[in-house]
Formats: sequence, C-alpha cells, structure tokens
Amino acid sequence: MSESNWSVPETEVVQRVRDRLDADGTDVLATIVGVEGSAYRRPGAKMLLDDEGGVGSITAGCIEDDLLAAAEAVRESGRPDRVSYDLMGDDADDVWGLGVGCNGVIDILLEPLDKTYRPAVEAFDAGRDVAVLTVLSADGGSPDGPEQLGDRAYYYPDEGHLRLPDGSPADEWPDEALAEPAADLAERGSGDVVTVEGLDGATLTVFIDGITAPADLVVFGTGHDVGPVVELAERTDFRVTAVGFRGAVDLAARFPEAHRTVTTSPGELDDALDIDDRTHAVVMTHNFVDDRLVVETLLRSDAPYVGLMGPRDRFDEMLEAFDDEGTTFDEADLESLYTPVGLDLGGGSPYQIAHSIVGEALAVSNDRTPGHLRQRDGHIHDRVDVDASPSP
Amino acid sequence: MSESNWSVPETEVVQRVRDRLDADGTDVLATIVGVEGSAYRRPGAKMLLDDEGGVGSITAGCIEDDLLAAAEAVRESGRPDRVSYDLMGDDADDVWGLGVGCNGVIDILLEPLDKTYRPAVEAFDAGRDVAVLTVLSADGGSPDGPEQLGDRAYYYPDEGHLRLPDGSPADEWPDEALAEPAADLAERGSGDVVTVEGLDGATLTVFIDGITAPADLVVFGTGHDVGPVVELAERTDFRVTAVGFRGAVDLAARFPEAHRTVTTSPGELDDALDIDDRTHAVVMTHNFVDDRLVVETLLRSDAPYVGLMGPRDRFDEMLEAFDDEGTTFDEADLESLYTPVGLDLGGGSPYQIAHSIVGEALAVSNDRTPGHLRQRDGHIHDRVDVDASPSP
Repeated sequence: MSESNWSVPETEVVQRVRDRLDADGTDVLATIVGVEGSAYRRPGAKMLLDDEGGVGSITAGCIEDDLLAAAEAVRESGRPDRVSYDLMGDDADDVWGLGVGCNGVIDILLEPLDKTYRPAVEAFDAGRDVAVLTVLSADGGSPDGPEQLGDRAYYYPDEGHLRLPDGSPADEWPDEALAEPAADLAERGSGDVVTVEGLDGATLTVFIDGITAPADLVVFGTGHDVGPVVELAERTDFRVTAVGFRGAVDLAARFPEAHRTVTTSPGELDDALDIDDRTHAVVMTHNFVDDRLVVETLLRSDAPYVGLMGPRDRFDEMLEAFDDEGTTFDEADLESLYTPVGLDLGGGSPYQIAHSIVGEALAVSNDRTPGHLRQRDGHIHDRVDVDASPSP
Repeated sequence: MSESNWSVPETEVVQRVRDRLDADGTDVLATIVGVEGSAYRRPGAKMLLDDEGGVGSITAGCIEDDLLAAAEAVRESGRPDRVSYDLMGDDADDVWGLGVGCNGVIDILLEPLDKTYRPAVEAFDAGRDVAVLTVLSADGGSPDGPEQLGDRAYYYPDEGHLRLPDGSPADEWPDEALAEPAADLAERGSGDVVTVEGLDGATLTVFIDGITAPADLVVFGTGHDVGPVVELAERTDFRVTAVGFRGAVDLAARFPEAHRTVTTSPGELDDALDIDDRTHAVVMTHNFVDDRLVVETLLRSDAPYVGLMGPRDRFDEMLEAFDDEGTTFDEADLESLYTPVGLDLGGGSPYQIAHSIVGEALAVSNDRTPGHLRQRDGHIHDRVDVDASPSP
C-alpha cells in the first residue's frame, strides 16, 4: 500500500467506489466491523480492493497485503466473507506491522461490491446522512428473512424507516429494533454491531455503518488567495463549492480541487445554492459590497459557519451599512459569524492563512473548541486510537 | 498571474531565486519596500520576474501585469528602479483589481537579480536569520559611500555587524546606526525603511528586509500517516525533515515534499540532527521504545515543540519508563511536550489529523495561543492587511 494510497481523503474512497460501481467491475469492499484494543481506524473504515490494488485503508499497513489475498477469494467466490486478525501484543506487532502500530483484534467484512451499495454512494453525494445495515449472521428463523451474510438494508434519518437497496420497504427487517441505533450511528458517523430479534424469531447480528454526509464548504471569491483554501478544505474532506460572481474567471480551471463551481450573483444565492445547517462558508471576495450581500444572506440562513476575511472594523462598517438599509442582526444571528476569519496560528502566507481558515471550519463542523488537545479534558474520541503501539 | 503562482509557499520563491542565480539568468526581483493603506502583502514580500513570468506575488493580482512591463525595462537597463502604485479608492480598485482588493500605495524596488542577493538565499538555506540592507536613496556625501540605489549590505544577528555581499566588512556603511534596526527586523522577519546619516554625511534611505529563517519541522516516523503531515507542513513554509530508523523504507520517495530525509537510529539523534530552538518535532513512529528514546532526547533539547502522537496515558507509561531508568523531567522540561498531539479540530482522517498537528506546530512557532481570531484581543498584526477592499 503506497503512502499516497493511505493518504487519500475519505471522499476519494467514495468517489472510487462510485466509479467502480459504474464500471461494473468485480471489486471487493472491505469494511472494519469490529475493533478490539487499538488499531488505526474505527469500525466503518473502508478499503476498496479493485484490480488496481486498494483505495483507502483499514490500518496503517498492518494487514492490507494479507487482505488482498482474502479479497481475491471473495472476488472468485462472489460471496461475502468475514475475516478476523488478532494483532495483539508485541509479537503480532513485529509480525504484522514492523512497529507501525498494529495491535488489537480487527474484524473485517469482505463483500463483492455490487449495486446493493449504490444507495450509500448516492446518499453521500446528495449530502444526506445514511446508515447501511448489513447482516453479519442470523441464527434460526425462516429462510425468507434477511438471513444471509451480506444482506442489506438502508436507514435514512430523514425518513425514519428501513428500506431495501432497491428502495422498496424492508418489510422483513425488524424496523423498530433497528431504527433507533441506525439513526444514532448515522448522525454520529460511526459503525457498530447490534444483535436483535428478527421478525421470524431469528437472532440477527447486524453491522450498522453510519455514514455522515461530508460537510460543505462554500468559498465566495475568485482571488488568488482562494486556491489554497479550496485545496486544503478538499484534503480535509469538505465537499467544496467555489462561488464566483460575474463570470470573470474560469472557476473550474482555477480551482481544480473544488467538488463544484458556481457562477452567480450576490443577489441570487438562495436560488444558486442550497444553504443549510451543514454549509460552512468562507467569504473572501475582497469586494465590500459583494461581501456584505453574501454575509447578509448567510446570517439569515442556517449556515453554522460564516467566515469573513478582513479586520473586525471592516465588519463593523458592514453592520452600519446593514443598519442604514434597515437590516439588523441580533447576537444569535451573529453566533455563526467568524471575523477575522481563521484560527490564531500566526503566519501571513497564502497557505498559512488558508490553513487557519480550514482549521477553524473543521473545528466548527465537528463542534470542537479549537485549542491544544493536551489541554482538553476527557477522551479524544476520534483520536484516542490513533496511536497503536503496544506497551513494552 | 496564475492561481498556483500566487499560492506558492514562500520557500518555493527562495528556491526559485536560488535556481535563477545558479542559472545566471537576467531576472528581476521585485520587493515591496513600502505600503500605505491596505494591500495584500507587507514590505519584504517578493516576486521574481523571470523569463517564464513571475514566481511569488506582492499583491492579489492588482498590479502584477503592469509590473511585468516595469521589470522588462529594468532587465534591459540592468539598473534597479523604484515604482510606486497609488491604488487608493474605488476607482483604483476598479482600474487595477476588479474588486480583488487593491487599494493603498505600494512602493516597489525592482532590481536585476545578481550575486549580491546570494547571501540572502544562503542564509535562508542555512536556517540563519539575516537582514538585507538596500540603499533606496542617498543625498550628499562622497561618491565612495554606499550611495547608489540598490547598493547592498547584510546584517547577521549572530555576528552583530554589517558585511558586504562578498563577505568583506562594510566599512563605508554606518554600522552603528543600522545594526539595531537590522537586528530587530531580522528577528521579526519584517521589512522597513530607515533614514540614517552616512559616514560621509550623506542622508541614506535604506530598506531593511528582515528575513527570518523558516522554522524546522522534524517528523519522526515512516508510517503512512506521516505523509500528510510532511505535505501540509511544507505548504505552510516549514522546512521539513523526515526521520526514519533502520533504513526500512526509501524516505525520499515516500515523502517527496520533505526538504530532506534522514535515516538514523534513536540513539544517534544528536549527531544526525541539529536540534535547536527552532526545531519543531512530531513524534509518530508508533513504536513505544523508539518514541520514548526520541522524546527523551527532544525534552533535553531546546526544541520548543515536541508533539507526541498517542493518548495521554501512553505518555504516562513513558514517564514511568523514564523513572525506572532514573530519568526525570520537571514541569519546565515538559512545557514543550504536546500530547495528545494536535489542535482539537475533530476528525480522524489522515489529512484531518495532519491538519491539526501542523496547525499546532504553526501556532507554537508563531508564539500564538490557538483559538478563534474573532476572540483574540488587539491587532492581528500579520493578518490585518489581508483584506484590501475599500469601504463604500
């Protein structure tokens, strides 16, 4: 597994899955369904094993090579399989990881990538949270139930009930028992195994893979300082939209990392963009009037983050201009406004500024108070398992 | 000027200058020597105008095109020149910048890039602060003095006196009057114009360009999670050294963005690396014993930042191991230790983790307390001029 392979943003893994689904290839999707002890990634981490090797990663190189062999078997049989690796202790670390941090037990679901997974990709692309429910085992019950390893259903929090991959109602799934954990995991974007009783009395063990849609980052501006913001935001898994006014420049060419580009006018944002509670905006048109119109629209929206470039007194001028036109914002409205934009990291180069802006958007999107982790109380839930080396 | 051009890290501008000096080409170096009102970059910002166009930038596209013409004249005459652009007000903004944020008066020194600039590049490469003193004007005095526009001397804080570009003593420069401001600006990495009396009675106007050597970021580890740290650190102008042990992998191939790679052993760090008060270290070998040996060396050094990947309790185990071997660290020693490493931004993907680590190193290197800029009191010195749009 190459370094670049390990480093791909999550969004690129999903894009690759989509491409392979379209290509109708015979690929294998590997998903961590259980982790004991410490391993690099958490349940739900995925790796697509296609004819070019693997995209994405499950551990920092501990078992990927071995996984390729297991995947080959699944590709040939066309049937899903579960593999478990016990990487406990120093020996395992030596055997598997050359000290790159491999211990713990990892339980992995291997399945042929087929159209039953397409709804997950479509939800991700649509910016819609979803939970993918996959049967790991079923004991007892009738043969009509969802009893086979790999059988699948979907749960959309915005719908509230299970559906089969083809969109039809999942009548044979225990909707009531699964809806609540599915809703929770979809919102948190994590995965877990639940055991419930099937409608036919079977004991169902189901892996629920909560996939939270990526946060949107919308950048307003076409100046040469926008590029680094787009690039770093894409790296950190924001779905980036670059917005320009008056069609002055070829946005797609200028911002190749952007998920999409939109050319519109400050007065038509509501029509041109879907601004909602997962929209993180960075306003840097460097044009006072444009910025003011954009900020006015954003402060009236549900956008949780409105980063405005420029010194504080410039925004004070903006507030006066709002007053003059009879527009007023109360403190609650201004909660989402971050100006001067960015974290206080120092440094004035374009990339340093972009780093501070993207870091701030990331913190807000994850509801964190940016500061040193060493000063944070409690567990660092999604970081505590980063280190994986055994104690001596 | 292309977006990628604008986005190049400062270090790449210096590298380009070095390459062009080696190539002995007829290029022109443009340096902002004065700024009134708001413009994108500060005094000292540079742009190299070579036969391929320009590398680096001094405003967000406001005057670069015009600058190319002025540079052409300097290239032909072979003599330095000063140009001043008055971009005050809306009109100027329309004329020059299409609203990308151009106002204020910008005073620019244009000079043929020649060997008198090489000491600046060498100091930068050597990790040595330096001040480049360039005569802007001289009234009166004898013709022997440093009176010509473009005449140059250097000041190294670690030496304490002026030198000519060829290394000889700058006997004809008013050392006493210039040493103090030069030392101050070199340390702060900013530029300013000073007027002093020359030894021959001339009134010397000198631009002092303080160039602070880039901070070093040394990453210990060769795992697949290291790559994003190296990449993002390079983007934010750290001089990155990737350190691996036991020659397990081809570091240069794995970490192409690294300024250099070092293969050594945990016991030989002092010999293999120059660890000093500008060394920022990230320890992520994922091997407990290696990490412990590296951290022990770093905590004994002047390194201001020692980021250790892994949960806090892992470091507590490390402290116990230190105790067992009779090594103790007091609170002052542990000031520089940051574990868990990184800023609390949330997110667990390799790039998100790398973003939080590099952001923390950047904040420490700039002596900032990371947090939202909107909550910071006082001026954001190196950010206040980011916005450049005129008030309506």
